[in-house]
Amino acid sequence: MLGYEKEILDIIRSNNSPRVICDQLQNYHANDMAAILPKLEKKERLTLYRVMRIEDLAEIMEYADEDADIYLEEMDPKKASNVLEKMEPATAADILKNSDSQYKKAWLEMMDPEIQDAIRMLAAYEEDTIASRMRTNYIAIKRNLSIKEAMRSLIDQASENDNISVIYILDEEGIFYGAADLKDLIIAREGTKLEDIVETNYPYVYDDEKIEDCLEKIKDYSEESIPVLSEDNHIVGVITSQDVVEVVDDEMGEDYAKLGGLSAEEDLKEPILLSVKKRLPWLVLLMFMGMGVSTVVGLFETVVQKLTLIMAFQSMILDMSGNVGTQSLAVTIRVLMDKNLTVREKLHLIGKEMSVGFANGLILCIVSFVVIGLYIMAARHMPVMTAFAISACIGLSLLLAMLISSFVGTAVPIFFNQIGVDPAVASGPLITTLTDLVGVVTYYGLSWVMLVNILHM
Amino acid sequence: MLGYEKEILDIIRSNNSPRVICDQLQNYHANDMAAILPKLEKKERLTLYRVMRIEDLAEIMEYADEDADIYLEEMDPKKASNVLEKMEPATAADILKNSDSQYKKAWLEMMDPEIQDAIRMLAAYEEDTIASRMRTNYIAIKRNLSIKEAMRSLIDQASENDNISVIYILDEEGIFYGAADLKDLIIAREGTKLEDIVETNYPYVYDDEKIEDCLEKIKDYSEESIPVLSEDNHIVGVITSQDVVEVVDDEMGEDYAKLGGLSAEEDLKEPILLSVKKRLPWLVLLMFMGMGVSTVVGLFETVVQKLTLIMAFQSMILDMSGNVGTQSLAVTIRVLMDKNLTVREKLHLIGKEMSVGFANGLILCIVSFVVIGLYIMAARHMPVMTAFAISACIGLSLLLAMLISSFVGTAVPIFFNQIGVDPAVASGPLITTLTDLVGVVTYYGLSWVMLVNILHM
Repeated sequence: MLGYEKEILDIIRSNNSPRVICDQLQNYHANDMAAILPKLEKKERLTLYRVMRIEDLAEIMEYADEDADIYLEEMDPKKASNVLEKMEPATAADILKNSDSQYKKAWLEMMDPEIQDAIRMLAAYEEDTIASRMRTNYIAIKRNLSIKEAMRSLIDQASENDNISVIYILDEEGIFYGAADLKDLIIAREGTKLEDIVETNYPYVYDDEKIEDCLEKIKDYSEESIPVLSEDNHIVGVITSQDVVEVVDDEMGEDYAKLGGLSAEEDLKEPILLSVKKRLPWLVLLMFMGMGVSTVVGLFETVVQKLTLIMAFQSMILDMSGNVGTQSLAVTIRVLMDKNLTVREKLHLIGKEMSVGFANGLILCIVSFVVIGLYIMAARHMPVMTAFAISACIGLSLLLAMLISSFVGTAVPIFFNQIGVDPAVASGPLITTLTDLVGVVTYYGLSWVMLVNILHM
Repeated sequence: MLGYEKEILDIIRSNNSPRVICDQLQNYHANDMAAILPKLEKKERLTLYRVMRIEDLAEIMEYADEDADIYLEEMDPKKASNVLEKMEPATAADILKNSDSQYKKAWLEMMDPEIQDAIRMLAAYEEDTIASRMRTNYIAIKRNLSIKEAMRSLIDQASENDNISVIYILDEEGIFYGAADLKDLIIAREGTKLEDIVETNYPYVYDDEKIEDCLEKIKDYSEESIPVLSEDNHIVGVITSQDVVEVVDDEMGEDYAKLGGLSAEEDLKEPILLSVKKRLPWLVLLMFMGMGVSTVVGLFETVVQKLTLIMAFQSMILDMSGNVGTQSLAVTIRVLMDKNLTVREKLHLIGKEMSVGFANGLILCIVSFVVIGLYIMAARHMPVMTAFAISACIGLSLLLAMLISSFVGTAVPIFFNQIGVDPAVASGPLITTLTDLVGVVTYYGLSWVMLVNILHM
């Protein structure tokens, strides 16, 4: 247990008055308070809910992630509703959306109608749209104000809105016009016009844009916040850098999980049954595709019967073929994140991957020809010519398999991307199977032609 | 080409006066300007450097990433130095550190001595420390000021410092005392004491902390900026949310690349030779480990000679064993990102992964027993008993191999993590090889015992 956790526990378990406990707990960050909640007894949490201020509870709940609704259920419904009301509406909407609590309708209905509307609006956006991640707290002022009036309007709005470092400027009809840095507003001299500090080239996104489509753009501009516009160019919310951190983390975590053969990210606390369910579809699919590969291997049974030794190197050829395919896949998926790639750039990528596959294949071809040839001579006491004929066959298969697999590992995700299917999900199983097939067919095919048909082994 | 790119090109290529071109280009975001640079002729870029203001060039260079030093070299050295001087010192330090330009010493020496010092200080930090990513622009005020004095101090500092949404509060000796939201300072009423709006529980990091060790913490607190302290608790810089986005992107990109079998991230523009060099070490290592596996497979040659059919299903067993190992590896590496994991939690993870492996293995065992049994009967015209004896052997091997591989996929990265080696790099090749060995030994071992020794096939 970390030092501060012990301190917080001691404060909660002390016999001090509510007021003293509340004051002492003020010294800890909401994130640390949230981390302590699962370690408390339910009775102790109830004490905490009673002594702490609504605003503080709201902040703690914002850090409690997926457990928040469990804690809210432990509170008096009216209090829970008040806490949700004080939270960032986007976070509250998230909690309500994912909660199975019987109270969730009641919590929502007891809130201030304006906040209810904001939460309903946020909850209505699809999970994969950028608007589902936005905050509704931001500062907007009209473009025709003077600097002094703008500053006054800012101070008025600041008490209710958190994200003040960028100020959004609207035209007369409330349409997004540009943005100004709070910094520039603060240091502006008397007499400067608001117009002079507005950046009209400020980036923005539309509420129905898919996260994966606009994330790279948002990252590239690296502004502290970016406005989210509705169809009619009014601001409906903002995406802050903190939100981007979360989105990047989620999106990359998903891609990472997919490359690792999982359908979605998992964590330590997830129930076993859920993990089983998440992984099983892939595994079943992979098994049936593996059975297909095995059927193809079965076609070469006669080759193996004649020369059992070559069977031993099958696993190596298939592994290497798979490794090269995965390397190309990993590179391609990252490159495809850039949505503005031209067809020429995609073809260039295929060419590059195949060149890399060929270069590495050639080096490994030579190494394995020498090493495996010597090994077969020494361990199996075969004549030089036979040993090196077999190792030449293995080396050439490696080269061919690596060249073709680097093509497969690049072309398959590009194809899925082109037809609008997420390449990270769809490519994995197909590439394992395809590189296996490439390995089996080149290896046994070459063995059959070179060793059985030409050299009559 | 995107619409705005065409517009920018037209402006630069027009015959307008420098002043008009400069004014027109003001309408475009620095990120968009940076994106256009590689598409210009050198002559056109020279025009751009001449017409644009130093501040604007500095902003564009901040967005130009690794190409910035190429552009700076095209400028007059004095101008390049001025541009670097106006940039965020952390970015300037980065450019100078990674540049091979003959001018880089000259650029540095022509700068304002204070900025030179900041850049030298930043460049001295190791790449993997959090301080190498910090910015040196922040607002710090003494704790004994009144709200009004604090506001005045803020306005004074704001013209030279960008990151103003969090204000750092120092004690009399300049030691970090806490932080205040600019928002709270703005809305504070006359007579409030600065002390009342300071959060003394504000998170911080030390400059020599490794990025991977403190990144989770920084993300969890999700503040707009976090101070970086020196050994003696003075602030040396800040990490903003924008920096966190970049760091998360880099760190996760690295892990993603490692899981995909690459030693580091690659991109589209990377020269082929560099990609070959990045991938080759892994491939050579994997090939030699694959040869080891092949030697083990060779030991079972007699089993294969007696019953060639079972050889066909080797690829399926090895694939499934590898898939399960990779799934466990992907989950484990993500879980290990949390540096505060107890030994008990780690053991729990191994137990959980093995349960998942067993559950999925059992399901696939039953499916493959039935499906492969029927397949062998139908395709190979074997008697029912023989067919299902073989498929039982395959099913049981699957179950065993998946159970052991889920252990291997979890225990290996935990072991590397425990001895202080990056589990994402070290685990990959070892796990491929180990799961292959697990698959080969269980499958051929079981075949030898069940089919050859007991059933005398």
